[in-house]
Formats: sequence, C-alpha cells, structure tokens
Amino acid sequence: MKEEDKLSVWKNKLHEIIYEADTPMGKLFDIILFFIIIFSVILIMLESVKSIDAEYHQILFVLEWVVTIFFTIEYIARIICIKKPTQYIFSFYGIIDFLSTIPLYISYIFAGSQVLLAVRAFRLLRVFRILKLVQFLGEASQLKRALRASRAKITVFLFAVLIASVMMGTLMYLIEGDEAGFTSIPTSIYWTIVTLTTVGYGDIAPITPQGQAIATIIMLLGYGIIAVPTGMVTAEFARQNKERTGESSGNRYVHVNTQSCPTCSKEGHRDDATHCYNCGSILNE
Amino acid sequence: MKEEDKLSVWKNKLHEIIYEADTPMGKLFDIILFFIIIFSVILIMLESVKSIDAEYHQILFVLEWVVTIFFTIEYIARIICIKKPTQYIFSFYGIIDFLSTIPLYISYIFAGSQVLLAVRAFRLLRVFRILKLVQFLGEASQLKRALRASRAKITVFLFAVLIASVMMGTLMYLIEGDEAGFTSIPTSIYWTIVTLTTVGYGDIAPITPQGQAIATIIMLLGYGIIAVPTGMVTAEFARQNKERTGESSGNRYVHVNTQSCPTCSKEGHRDDATHCYNCGSILNE
Amino acid sequence: MKEEDKLSVWKNKLHEIIYEADTPMGKLFDIILFFIIIFSVILIMLESVKSIDAEYHQILFVLEWVVTIFFTIEYIARIICIKKPTQYIFSFYGIIDFLSTIPLYISYIFAGSQVLLAVRAFRLLRVFRILKLVQFLGEASQLKRALRASRAKITVFLFAVLIASVMMGTLMYLIEGDEAGFTSIPTSIYWTIVTLTTVGYGDIAPITPQGQAIATIIMLLGYGIIAVPTGMVTAEFARQNKERTGESSGNRYVHVNTQSCPTCSKEGHRDDATHCYNCGSILNE
Amino acid sequence: MKEEDKLSVWKNKLHEIIYEADTPMGKLFDIILFFIIIFSVILIMLESVKSIDAEYHQILFVLEWVVTIFFTIEYIARIICIKKPTQYIFSFYGIIDFLSTIPLYISYIFAGSQVLLAVRAFRLLRVFRILKLVQFLGEASQLKRALRASRAKITVFLFAVLIASVMMGTLMYLIEGDEAGFTSIPTSIYWTIVTLTTVGYGDIAPITPQGQAIATIIMLLGYGIIAVPTGMVTAEFARQNKERTGESSGNRYVHVNTQSCPTCSKEGHRDDATHCYNCGSILNE
Repeated sequence: MKEEDKLSVWKNKLHEIIYEADTPMGKLFDIILFFIIIFSVILIMLESVKSIDAEYHQILFVLEWVVTIFFTIEYIARIICIKKPTQYIFSFYGIIDFLSTIPLYISYIFAGSQVLLAVRAFRLLRVFRILKLVQFLGEASQLKRALRASRAKITVFLFAVLIASVMMGTLMYLIEGDEAGFTSIPTSIYWTIVTLTTVGYGDIAPITPQGQAIATIIMLLGYGIIAVPTGMVTAEFARQNKERTGESSGNRYVHVNTQSCPTCSKEGHRDDATHCYNCGSILNE
Repeated sequence: MKEEDKLSVWKNKLHEIIYEADTPMGKLFDIILFFIIIFSVILIMLESVKSIDAEYHQILFVLEWVVTIFFTIEYIARIICIKKPTQYIFSFYGIIDFLSTIPLYISYIFAGSQVLLAVRAFRLLRVFRILKLVQFLGEASQLKRALRASRAKITVFLFAVLIASVMMGTLMYLIEGDEAGFTSIPTSIYWTIVTLTTVGYGDIAPITPQGQAIATIIMLLGYGIIAVPTGMVTAEFARQNKERTGESSGNRYVHVNTQSCPTCSKEGHRDDATHCYNCGSILNE
Repeated sequence: MKEEDKLSVWKNKLHEIIYEADTPMGKLFDIILFFIIIFSVILIMLESVKSIDAEYHQILFVLEWVVTIFFTIEYIARIICIKKPTQYIFSFYGIIDFLSTIPLYISYIFAGSQVLLAVRAFRLLRVFRILKLVQFLGEASQLKRALRASRAKITVFLFAVLIASVMMGTLMYLIEGDEAGFTSIPTSIYWTIVTLTTVGYGDIAPITPQGQAIATIIMLLGYGIIAVPTGMVTAEFARQNKERTGESSGNRYVHVNTQSCPTCSKEGHRDDATHCYNCGSILNE
Repeated sequence: MKEEDKLSVWKNKLHEIIYEADTPMGKLFDIILFFIIIFSVILIMLESVKSIDAEYHQILFVLEWVVTIFFTIEYIARIICIKKPTQYIFSFYGIIDFLSTIPLYISYIFAGSQVLLAVRAFRLLRVFRILKLVQFLGEASQLKRALRASRAKITVFLFAVLIASVMMGTLMYLIEGDEAGFTSIPTSIYWTIVTLTTVGYGDIAPITPQGQAIATIIMLLGYGIIAVPTGMVTAEFARQNKERTGESSGNRYVHVNTQSCPTCSKEGHRDDATHCYNCGSILNE
C-alpha cells in the first residue's frame, strides 16, 4: 500500500466518522458534537446576560475559545476528508459551520464587532444535521408531507390574511390616528396582525368607539379563521392516517441510511446502494 | 375594411389585453399591473411614515403622480374598449378603480383633503381581479365552499358569542366599574370580546376578585369554544376530501377560462362557449 | 256564545299571537318584539356611556319609559292569556321577563338603586325565546348534540386544567412574590389561567428568570393542549356527519312546530299533535 | 382467635377503608377525604391573601391545625395498615402525603420557614388518588391514549418550536437591543415564546420597524402552526372513534377494580385476581 493509498484510507475513515452515523465511532462523534453545540449555545446565552457576564466573564471567555477551537478543527477536518471540498464549503451546512466559527476570530481582530458574536447562536442549526440519526425523523417526515400537501391552501390563506391586514390596518390608521399609537400605515398593519393572530400586546390599542368596533371585528375574524389552517392540516393528517392503513396507497418507501456521498455530500442512499444516486461515484461500504 | 371596423378590431384587441389573461400580451399586462399596484401600495405606506416622508417627500410625490397617471390611462382605456361602459363603471371593480385613482386629484384641488389619500390603499383590492389567472384559485374555491357549507353553523356560533359577550360585558360593568377601565357597557363588551378571543391587550383588566373570577370563566370559555368553529370547518374539509376521492359526489365541474364578456363583463365562461351565459352577446374567440 | 266563551276565544287568540309563531300575527308579534328588545338593549348601552348620557339624557329617559311600559303590558298579557299563570311566572323566561321590566320602576321608587338598571340588559336573553322560529335552530341543535356528546371529556379536561392551574399558580407565587404582582395564591392562579388560555393581559408578568422559565412551560402547555378540546369536538362533528350520511343511524327525527301548550307552556309538539305531550290538555288547532 | 389475628383482621378492615373504594365505608372515606383536601387548599389560598389573613388569621390558623392533625392521623393509619410500610412511604403518593402534612410542624419549630407553607398546596395532587373511583376515568384514559399515540409527533413539534424560538429570539436580540426590553438572549427567547404561543403580554414589545416585521412573521407562524398539534390530536381522536366502532381493533380490555395490594400497594388488579400481579402475595377478598 502506497503512501497515497494510506492517506486515502485514512480520509475515508475520517469521512465515515464525521459525515455518517452508521458506525459506533460515527455515532459517538455525532453525540459528542450534539452536546458541544448545545453547550456552546448555552454559553452564548449566558454571555448575553449582563449580570452573569460581569461575574463569570473570564470563565465564559475561556470556554468559548475552547469550543471555537474545537469547531475550527472540525471545520478543517470536514474540508480535508471530502473529495470535492467546494461542494461542502458552499453547501447550506458548510456556510452555517463557517458562520458559527468565524465571529470570535473577527471580534478579536476588529474592535467593535462584538455584535457579531450573537451570530454564533445560529450554530444551533447544526443540530439538524446530527438529528438525521434520530428515529423521530419518520414522524417529522409525516409532518413535512402534511404541510407540503396543504402548501397551496396555506399560501392562499396567508395571502388573504395579509391583504385583509393591509386593508384593516389602513382603515384603523384613518380612524384612530396618532394619539392611540397608530402613527403610520405600517404600524397599523403591524397592530392588525398582532390583533388578528390573537397575540394582543396592548402597546397599541384603539381608544375611539369606532376603532374599538373595528378591532372587535378583526378579533372575531382572527378567532374564527384560525379554523382554516387547522382544518386543512387536520384533514390532511386524517387522510394520511387512512392511506397508511388502507391498501389504496400507491407510494412505496425504502429505508435509507445516514451515509453521505464522499464526493458530493448527497444523503439519503438506499441500504443496498453502491453508487451515489446523484453523482454516481462509489460509496464507502 | 372601413375606418369603423378597424376601430372595432382595435377595441377588441385592447379588451383582450386589459380584461383577459389568455394571450401572452394579456398575461404581461396583468403581471405589470400587479407589480404597479403592489409598488403603489408600498408608496402609500412609506408616505404615512413621518420620518420617511420628511426626507423623501419629493421623490414619493413624483412617483405617486406617475402611478396615478398610469392608473388614469388604464381606467380610461377600460371604459373605451368595453361595449357597455356603464356596466364596468358601476361594477365592484369599476368603483374600486375609480376610488383608487381619484384621491390624488381631489387632494390637489381641495386643500385639507389629504386624509382621503389613504383611501388609495384600497387599490390593493384590485389584485384580486388579477389573481384570477393564478392556479391557486382551485384551492381558494375549495376554501370558499367549505366556508359556505359551514355558514349557517358559523352564524349561529357568532350570534351566541355576541349575546354571551353582551351579557358578560354588562356583568363586568356592574362588578368592576370605572377604576378598572370598565367605564361603560360598550367598553365592557369590547373588553369581553378582547378576552374571549384570547387577544388580551391588558389596557383594561379586572382588579376585584369577583371580576377576576368572571374573567377566568370568560377566558376558559373562549379557550374552549374555539373548538367549535375549528371543528365545523375541519369536519367540512374532511367531508370534501372524501367526496373528491369517492364516486358518490353528484357535482360536476367544467373548466372555465379567464375571458370576460365584452358587453356585460361577466366572467367564468366555458372554454367552448360562444355566447355570454348572462347577456347572450357573442364572445370574442 | 256566552260572555265567558268569548273571553276564552279572545284569550286563545292572544295566546296564539304571544306564545306561538305559526300564524302571521304570531310571527309579526315576534319580529316586533325582537327589534324592541334589541332597541332597548342599545338604549341601555348608550345610557351607560357618560358623554352620550350627558347630552341625550332626556330622550333616552323617555324612550326607556316607552319600552318599559310596552314590556309591562306584554308581561301582563302573558299572564292573562295563559291558563296556569304560575307556570309561566316561575319559569325561566317568566323570571327573565320580570327582571327585565321591574328595575326602572324600582329605581323610581328607591333612590340609589340606579345600579340595578344595568340588570335590564339581561332582557337580551329574551331573544332566545323568539329565535325558536329561526331555521338556524337545526344547526344549533347539532352544535348542542356535539357538545353534549363531548361533555364527559370536556369535564375531565377542564378539571385537569384547573388542578394544573392551582399547582402552577402556587409555584409562581412561591417564585415571583409581591414585586411582580403575584400578591396572593388566587391572584397567581388567575395569572396562570390568563397565560394558559393564551390571553396574556400583561398586567402581571414574571420578572425573575425562574419565573419566566415556568411561564414558558405554561404557555407551551396552553398552546399545545388547546388541541384537546378542539380534537374532541372535531371528532364528534365528523362522527355526526358520517352518521347522517350512513344508514347506521338509529335516531329518527320528526318535525315539531312552535306551538306552546296553553296550559303548561311546554313546547316542541309534533305537527299532528292534538294533546300536550306533557300535561295532556288539548292544544289549540 | 388470638390477639394477633384480631389485630390482623382489624388491619385488613382499615386497609380496605383507606386504600380501596369498593365498600360503602371505603367510598365514604374517599368522599370525606376529597372534601377535606379541597377545603384545606381553599384555606391555604385564603391565608395567602393579605387582607383576609389580617382579619381572620386566628380562625384560619385553628382550622389549618385541625386539618393537619387529621392528615397526620391518616398518614400514620396508612403506614400501620399496610404490610410493607416502606413501599408506601417511598411511593409517589406517600411522598406527597408526607410533604403536604409536615410543613406546618416545621414552620412551628423553625422560625422563618413560613415560605414552606405554600408547599401544602401540593396536597391537591392527592385528589388524583381519590378520583380513581370516578366514572370519568374511562374518558381520561382515552385522552391519555390519544396523547400517548401522538407523543413522538408532539416531541418533534416541540423541539422544532424550541429551536425556532432560540433562532428568532437571538435575531430579535441583535435587532432590538436594550431599550425595547430585549436585554439578553434568554429574555428575547422568552419574548419569542410569548409571541409564538399568541399569549402576548406586551411587557416587552418591538419598537423598530425591522423588529416589528420579524415579530409579524413570528406571530403568523405561531398562528399557523398551532394547526399542527391540533391536527395530530384530532386525527388521533377520529382514529380511536373509528376503531371503537369497527371490529378491526386488536386490543382487549379487562375490568380492574380499585383494590390495592396490602403488601406492595400496586393497583389495577383484575376482578377475579387472587394474587397480586406484581409481588404475588394474596389479595384480601
């Protein structure tokens, strides 16, 4: 075995550990990574609380550097062990990985860029990659299918809600005016959505009888039309339940594992796949 | 071909572009109109924000005039190319078109009529006319059918909610009185609906133990009875889903195109229609 | 025909007009009564608005007396034309009729009893009697049946919600204390229900991190468990829809008219009934 | 019969009364206990209201001691009449019984432990033990089954909501900053959940246009995705309804009585059981 081959074997090994979750090592790596991400997000939260930051700044600072260095090593390892690094670097998770690692370095170089540090919280999105090994995904995919099937209806519904909000918001702006807090049409539209969705902060509230009358209509509307998205999703769930029990379903499912192609990073390969269904390169066994 | 015939051909052409969406030109016109309407509504919103209006008043003013002149030309063209102009002028969309064009001219003539400018926001309603070419309409019509089928139930429900609100509001007025903000029965009814729909602004809130006890009952009532409209609409959706898959449905649907009668403006003609189903005049092919 | 017989005929006639809605006169009476009730409730509302009462006190006062005298005559007529007056006087609607008529007289006799005037708003409950002629009642009875079928489940649900509220409220009282507004356990329970039902006034809000953490749990709980009553009522509606279409339903319905027994006031007689199903006395044809 | 045997018989009798609800005496005991628990919880609530405590402190104090002594006797009786006392003492209800009895004694011994008194409110949990005799339990178990069947879906849903809340909360912290009340990331996440669940206190509310825009998205999201848990639970209820009517159900149920094993306290024995299914010891007939 030549030097190059040994390197290649070593790279494949690393790829299996970092990108997949079928081997014990791959699973362990994912679990460790999961807890480090959660831990680092809690760190960021604690840092943002002034009283805690004042007291434990030194500890939080050191821990944050430890986590960042770990993520830096992981990021470099991910680039090294994949065959087409650009595919990873410009993929969704590649960008998230980069954005969740770099802010600390930048804040060290440029003074006044502390605001960027909160961007690190977006590393929480990385947990979704790890969760591919969780058994709950079957449930999640059912949710996704129900939402996708109702997508057109939900779009129509949201569109109607937005147009109604613009109309109602403009009307309230005309009726209530500045004293009640309806200082501009966008603010009034914001208030209308606050009311329609039954959130109701109360920072802006109508004071004239006419305004209160229209507010009442908006509330009853919001209270009633929530039935529409609920009805759509429920009917969809019921249909899916039925389809699964009946024989009329024409869909077939195959089990896919957590392997990802070492060349193009595509996931969702069949258990018996030998080639990537996307780029055709050979998959590691 | 005589002069008059050429005019008639030209009018038919214009009618097809402006009123219909089956030809490429008709589609293009609708898409342009759609974006101009959205753009003009955003203009109106920005104007209402004091800080933006102070800085960019000149630009907004000019852009608004450009949009208004475009709408004026469109309005006149719509009148010219239709055979019975009064049918259009006094139709729903004809009035909307007029009301969304005229305010700027009026505000120019009469000082102090600036308040009318916000009326222009109602031109947003015009997008509904354009949306007739959108494929989502099938979904919208399903929503509409579900709502229509539940209409009687929803009326009973709303009526019961309103009577309960009047009763509860009066009771709260008797119990709480002026200090807590329950200054009159209408205000108390307003508060009751704010609470029942779970909006809860908090500008008015009970302070006596008895008032809080009744407020608790109203909240639990509102929290519980939302199940009623939701249940009605959901059951209706489920029924429709079933009907569509089963053969038991006695309804028959035919496809209608976006043509509108050049005489009476009625829409919803069958693809193979040669005469308007409303006035019997011949449709353009 | 003797004097007494003429009186009896006249009484029967009056009974038909006042208590029933099958004859044109009966219908007319109900419609007039309906609008007078609505009108009188609006009067009471306007009176409670200080600014309106200050300006139009005289007009409102006169109109209120007119309405009250009308109701007084109606009340006496109802007693006269029924065979067993006590049955009416101590029935639910008899008491409502009395309570909605008497306050104005009392306020005239005893100074300082103005607060009682608002009790008149409860005459709105009288509209329910009139609504017996409305075709929507079929829908209302379906609602009622769905709610009755879910009653046991709703009781269990409400009971669980109340116990959870007491627990959570006590916990919040321990954690938050006086500064945040959690001044006593009942107040904390009130706040818990305000939060659980997603009303959220904001007059009381947690300020400590622990309190906010528990508040978060209560909110998510409230956001999630609303699915329970909704699910119950929806499933019930769906079941009813199915039953109505299928042949498996063992229920049979007969049409009942709006006649009420002249002796015992019971309603819900079959169209072909000649005797009251409750007291057996002969019904007017 | 020896002395020891008489004691044993007496113990068995007591066990039947205290732990079970099949005999008239057992039922009576449970009903009395139920009302004493409710009464004692009301006592604790009243004590926490400063104005009431100031006036009636003496009466409340005496009543509380009466209740506590009753609970102490009951607690000791429960220990005496069971064969393996440690099984009861360290069971869930054993600990609740202890915690709801001891605080008054402790507050008497240690000054400054008054805060513990509110812990007594948790004795409300004891009513669940008594409710085992209530017929509503069939309904409750249906609720439980529906929730258990939807558990995996609800977990996925809650997890997604939490991650979205952390993301959105961090974003709002970056955009809004201190003046609007978004003082730290945890506070912003708290606000996000307040908004997403449509509670909307209004103690914290966005003031910048960008913040209000994102708040609008969060609200619409919260307004829309409530359809997901509702849909899941509803579909589950509908499925259960169907299963109960159809023959396709493979589950079999047996009736269990309210007996509890005198040795290990396990409940849920079949009516015809002679031995405890858990520890094998003989059950009282």
